[in-house]
Amino acid sequence: MKVSIIGATGYTGEELLRLLSSHPQAEIVAITSESQTGAAISEIYPHLQQFYDNKLVNMHQLDEIAAQSDVVFIALPHGHAMEAGKKIVAKGTKVIDLGADYRFSDTSVYEKWYKLPHTHQEAQPVYGLTELYREQVKTASIIGNPGCYTTASILALAPLVKHQLIELSSIIIDAKSGVSGAGRSLSLNSHFTEVFESVKAYNIAGHRHTPEIEQALGELAGSEIFISFTPHLIPIARGILSTCYSTLKAGVTAAQVDEAFHSLYQEEYFIRLLGRGGYPVTKNTRGSNYCDIGWHIDPRTNRVVVVSAIDNLVKGAAGQAVQNMNVMFGLDERLGLTQAPLYP
Amino acid sequence: MKVSIIGATGYTGEELLRLLSSHPQAEIVAITSESQTGAAISEIYPHLQQFYDNKLVNMHQLDEIAAQSDVVFIALPHGHAMEAGKKIVAKGTKVIDLGADYRFSDTSVYEKWYKLPHTHQEAQPVYGLTELYREQVKTASIIGNPGCYTTASILALAPLVKHQLIELSSIIIDAKSGVSGAGRSLSLNSHFTEVFESVKAYNIAGHRHTPEIEQALGELAGSEIFISFTPHLIPIARGILSTCYSTLKAGVTAAQVDEAFHSLYQEEYFIRLLGRGGYPVTKNTRGSNYCDIGWHIDPRTNRVVVVSAIDNLVKGAAGQAVQNMNVMFGLDERLGLTQAPLYP
Amino acid sequence: MKVSIIGATGYTGEELLRLLSSHPQAEIVAITSESQTGAAISEIYPHLQQFYDNKLVNMHQLDEIAAQSDVVFIALPHGHAMEAGKKIVAKGTKVIDLGADYRFSDTSVYEKWYKLPHTHQEAQPVYGLTELYREQVKTASIIGNPGCYTTASILALAPLVKHQLIELSSIIIDAKSGVSGAGRSLSLNSHFTEVFESVKAYNIAGHRHTPEIEQALGELAGSEIFISFTPHLIPIARGILSTCYSTLKAGVTAAQVDEAFHSLYQEEYFIRLLGRGGYPVTKNTRGSNYCDIGWHIDPRTNRVVVVSAIDNLVKGAAGQAVQNMNVMFGLDERLGLTQAPLYP
Amino acid sequence: MKVSIIGATGYTGEELLRLLSSHPQAEIVAITSESQTGAAISEIYPHLQQFYDNKLVNMHQLDEIAAQSDVVFIALPHGHAMEAGKKIVAKGTKVIDLGADYRFSDTSVYEKWYKLPHTHQEAQPVYGLTELYREQVKTASIIGNPGCYTTASILALAPLVKHQLIELSSIIIDAKSGVSGAGRSLSLNSHFTEVFESVKAYNIAGHRHTPEIEQALGELAGSEIFISFTPHLIPIARGILSTCYSTLKAGVTAAQVDEAFHSLYQEEYFIRLLGRGGYPVTKNTRGSNYCDIGWHIDPRTNRVVVVSAIDNLVKGAAGQAVQNMNVMFGLDERLGLTQAPLYP
Repeated sequence: MKVSIIGATGYTGEELLRLLSSHPQAEIVAITSESQTGAAISEIYPHLQQFYDNKLVNMHQLDEIAAQSDVVFIALPHGHAMEAGKKIVAKGTKVIDLGADYRFSDTSVYEKWYKLPHTHQEAQPVYGLTELYREQVKTASIIGNPGCYTTASILALAPLVKHQLIELSSIIIDAKSGVSGAGRSLSLNSHFTEVFESVKAYNIAGHRHTPEIEQALGELAGSEIFISFTPHLIPIARGILSTCYSTLKAGVTAAQVDEAFHSLYQEEYFIRLLGRGGYPVTKNTRGSNYCDIGWHIDPRTNRVVVVSAIDNLVKGAAGQAVQNMNVMFGLDERLGLTQAPLYP
Repeated sequence: MKVSIIGATGYTGEELLRLLSSHPQAEIVAITSESQTGAAISEIYPHLQQFYDNKLVNMHQLDEIAAQSDVVFIALPHGHAMEAGKKIVAKGTKVIDLGADYRFSDTSVYEKWYKLPHTHQEAQPVYGLTELYREQVKTASIIGNPGCYTTASILALAPLVKHQLIELSSIIIDAKSGVSGAGRSLSLNSHFTEVFESVKAYNIAGHRHTPEIEQALGELAGSEIFISFTPHLIPIARGILSTCYSTLKAGVTAAQVDEAFHSLYQEEYFIRLLGRGGYPVTKNTRGSNYCDIGWHIDPRTNRVVVVSAIDNLVKGAAGQAVQNMNVMFGLDERLGLTQAPLYP
Repeated sequence: MKVSIIGATGYTGEELLRLLSSHPQAEIVAITSESQTGAAISEIYPHLQQFYDNKLVNMHQLDEIAAQSDVVFIALPHGHAMEAGKKIVAKGTKVIDLGADYRFSDTSVYEKWYKLPHTHQEAQPVYGLTELYREQVKTASIIGNPGCYTTASILALAPLVKHQLIELSSIIIDAKSGVSGAGRSLSLNSHFTEVFESVKAYNIAGHRHTPEIEQALGELAGSEIFISFTPHLIPIARGILSTCYSTLKAGVTAAQVDEAFHSLYQEEYFIRLLGRGGYPVTKNTRGSNYCDIGWHIDPRTNRVVVVSAIDNLVKGAAGQAVQNMNVMFGLDERLGLTQAPLYP
Repeated sequence: MKVSIIGATGYTGEELLRLLSSHPQAEIVAITSESQTGAAISEIYPHLQQFYDNKLVNMHQLDEIAAQSDVVFIALPHGHAMEAGKKIVAKGTKVIDLGADYRFSDTSVYEKWYKLPHTHQEAQPVYGLTELYREQVKTASIIGNPGCYTTASILALAPLVKHQLIELSSIIIDAKSGVSGAGRSLSLNSHFTEVFESVKAYNIAGHRHTPEIEQALGELAGSEIFISFTPHLIPIARGILSTCYSTLKAGVTAAQVDEAFHSLYQEEYFIRLLGRGGYPVTKNTRGSNYCDIGWHIDPRTNRVVVVSAIDNLVKGAAGQAVQNMNVMFGLDERLGLTQAPLYP
């Protein structure tokens, strides 16, 4: 299977390279960068030296790249993937976009939160949260690969919403992310001395992953949902922990909650249920495509608290993209994704 | 003013030494340790070398220490302060306990959550959250100095509760703490390689700071309150960030919220209001007695999100203890506590 | 190929599990622990959950384990491997010991530095620095797998010593290690709050990796060597950087230095030469078996400075052990070791 | 005493503000920034909010600022201080420059290493390593405040060089610095995800602190010295550890080495001798003006290894600048610098 990566020099692109270069069925055809065309990727990421040394080309050759590839991964900033995606699918090649452009079934939601006109309205993308949309992924030509916060948060809450165990208006998600989620672009917010030995919240009541979570949970609920979502920046490189609060509907039992998780996820290889009382730890997922989930019921307040942990660059980005590729092409979903987490 | 510290070898005791040794009115009479009696504190904490080199004595001399001191700080594990406190006040000496033994006006709450009989029922302690209990602190003979999570959380929510702006049953507190909060005792939970590059929740729906927050907010509300409180461990040494969610009562305006914070705190030196839309950062408070507070209103969900940041060892422990000492002895409340935060 | 691990609950043992469980030719027969017999390894290391869940047995079954295994990895504290090794080789099973017991050809050196009698004098072990001792490893029955500091340091200096380009009395090695090198045993030296945001040297002029480096370099030089070796503890989990100083012999040119590195290592898959002027970075090797090497010549002082970087748990321990296993059994040396480094 | 800071928005400038704002004799007259003129410093550094809120002015007012100040601290990039210094001393105001422009008695050394013409040749600056140049500092009108690496390294080696105990050609300095030394300017070298969980060397045989160390040690030795100096970047915010190697002259005893340290430093408040066998730890100096020094003699190699630790922003920059100010104006040298280190 021939794959290409558009925008390979960010952390997401580089992580795709790590995973795809050891994928037993994938052959990397082309990797692109506009700012560093001509450089070998191993000059930019020396850890890939002697491992993956190919040169970066630029997007002027996109038609040719698409024609030579079975699937193209797009790891461009939002707003840039739409134009590329349009050209690629025109060649009959499948697209997996790791940005936000293809995540919304209702493009007006995209336009409102991202403040950009959507220029590929006819795309009919599938939202690539594999565990929940697997059937649609199988036949999709364009995948909108989910955001990192959203993957952790939706997977944590989906069983409760799907089985109608919680009050939909009560959902609060408090998420903590490592700094790699902010990418490799220079910013005071990613400057070592500012971030180190510190923690802060940001974008309260306005983060763009909010409508993405609301879309997926709303589809499961069969009704519109509004949630509170608060992201936090913590001084680690990789990892997201999502702590999700909601109020149980009257009469819901702990056994029903347990059953909701088990029935939805017991067959899922990449979801590890730590059970009621379990505590996910981001480090336990580092470098892997696992999502670890534990849940807790508080009888004093009648709330259920679900905690999920992922590696934001793997299950939250490149790993899930490869998982989707496997599904799209009828491969074993786990191919190229069975490395154990790197601990400690 | 003569002060002593019972249990000086933990991080809280050591932080008291840092603050008291530069306090213009305090003279340290005695410091104690049961396990390291006879050692100079600077052997255990070499950063104090040439700065504060006194030897540790043991508690057998407690009566004598109490007699020579105007105030004794107790930094022992909970359950151990009660006996010491009883002896000290018997000498007419004031007590500031940094553990949990004197934090509850209803000792049955203590007994329930800490699973210990309370042996100093007659103590009549004052809860030492200085900004809210200043008048009582002035005349107290025993102070129960608040916990770290509780200080950050109560200060964040007090204005909203006091002014009856929020639904009391809707309070959720998601807090993040540095590892120094777990002390210097060895544990896999504080082992570098386990904690580093990782984040996790713990003690969901069961952390002992829960009833302490409920007591203080309940007193402000004039009714019993049950909250959800979730602590998290993040890989920093110092700092707590508390993200507090609650639903606004119908009809409450943003201006009322703002006014609630300003009216309660505008004269408070150690509370820095970052305003509506403000984002506290733990690093901005490091080494200082400040509590930084910002708040956000989400019209989509009608929730108010308050974020507070403190240094858990200063405003969350030793600094607030010194602040209480200043108030108890009629000194300027800021004495010994006016160092700028250490940044970056 | 059937393998077992004696002492699987330390970081080295756990890292062996990570590597061996994905090794295409290895099947894990037994893992042991004395203190946690009967527990599943995934209870102790939850990151292995659903990945490798086997139960720990104890060493009473060592004869049986040896009989069922082609090779046994020993990850016990030094002093404990000798007895186990003796029993295992008696069964005709090969041994790879990750501790110090089998690292010294002259056991009196071991006895002097480790202050223990050597009880397996007849062992005839091979020192498992694969790149330098490959021929001997092929036929060895017992491998003394090198230490972490020593691997990085010997590989950095071997070309210069072998080609007689430097003054042997001038060697100074200044090494920096992550905290995982100190293991999972609790200690104030590995306590998060003590180590974090700090750096220190330790064991100056007395670290036990010193004679191991001197042995290997001495064999290359054909004469006894005394070096200065200083280890440092830095607040990272994985990684060793070794900065090695020595004085060039009169008349030695930069080209000769370059040639020494290239001739010794150009065929070595796990050694990445960054060239003269190159700067190894520990993060570039994280999770991989690579050793990155760069060198610098200072004409002002006539010194050559060689810098090497490894992941201490991989090339410095478990990875090199697997590399040795591959060599011992005639497999492709890279089997199970071709994962890309985990970055960032 | 009236003081001003030219270039107050870098970490060095901000640290000067932290120290000077609590200095009992200093009153801050003006702070400048070219890029952020008009902003309050507390907008740029919110940790200073309510603590020091003054607005930044620009350098167009330099003559006026100089006229109103007794001393002006310059915290500009090298090459920019010379012009400012010239104007300030013309007003009869003293200058303490925290950059490199005034560090070299022979300006041709500056011009060679910094590749810039020196435009203030007539300045007659004094090198502000207070412990070694105190007498000259007392009467200086311009101080070239030492670099961070150089302060730690010179203080470590000065006793040995001064007392002629070591071979001058044998000096090797291996130094490790936190990231704050690279300043607040954005760079991939200070990007959190690149630096975190990693260590590397840089500028081997070419770092600009090399000639500064050689100048100071050469003056003590009475002869020209060439050293090897290797800086390393480690993932901490503050702190420098300098590990210094040299060969003892034949016949030099341990007692002579001890005596050299004690005789030079026993009266020095800011130097804490940890003795022979002592291990400085950067965290023990954090936030303070201390330099901790320990030394070790290796009879196997006849080398002495000296280790020193400082906070690079305090003793390595702003703290030593304030120390110099105190000396220049006849104040107690410790004024404003007696805060205990912040630990942990």
